[in-house]
Amino acid sequence: MSTTGTGSSPCGACKFLRRKCAVDCIFAPYFCSEQGPARFAAIHKVFGASNVSKLLLHVPVPDRCEAVFTIAYEAQARIKDPVYGCVAHIYSLQQQAKFSC
Amino acid sequence: MSTTGTGSSPCGACKFLRRKCAVDCIFAPYFCSEQGPARFAAIHKVFGASNVSKLLLHVPVPDRCEAVFTIAYEAQARIKDPVYGCVAHIYSLQQQAKFSC
Repeated sequence: MSTTGTGSSPCGACKFLRRKCAVDCIFAPYFCSEQGPARFAAIHKVFGASNVSKLLLHVPVPDRCEAVFTIAYEAQARIKDPVYGCVAHIYSLQQQAKFSC
Repeated sequence: MSTTGTGSSPCGACKFLRRKCAVDCIFAPYFCSEQGPARFAAIHKVFGASNVSKLLLHVPVPDRCEAVFTIAYEAQARIKDPVYGCVAHIYSLQQQAKFSC
């Protein structure tokens, strides 16, 4: 098998996109070959691989893991609730804050 | 000028994308020709026009305005804060809830 970002197998993003995983693949550190494809599927559907790749390139490397986490959270929330996405969570927390105390 | 989604001028999304605005343009009801292009620019940068178009097609028409509003909110938050996006707002509200009362 070809040399890849994570070692002997393609990362989860490249596995999902059915493409060769480059040594410097921007997704490789955050999407493992096993659970990664399912996690990346939501991100790809909502944001698109190209947009996320561009976004990560503008984020410092030590912050990319957290960026991928929040992007994945937003993507999953938007798939679950296409109208409100994770903004539903914000509305809910705002209501809780309004009525607390 | 050609017939467009909103009347005589292209909608804000089509103006931004420099394309003809069709009579049934999915973006036309939500992006006016004046302020629309700037609002659509953030959405296009973060989500991509094609992804948002597909997402809106799966949302009932009466809910689309709210969907566009929350998508625009998420996009603007992600541009302002590339690492956390609007999830920063969720973290902040969760912290407030934790320490209230």
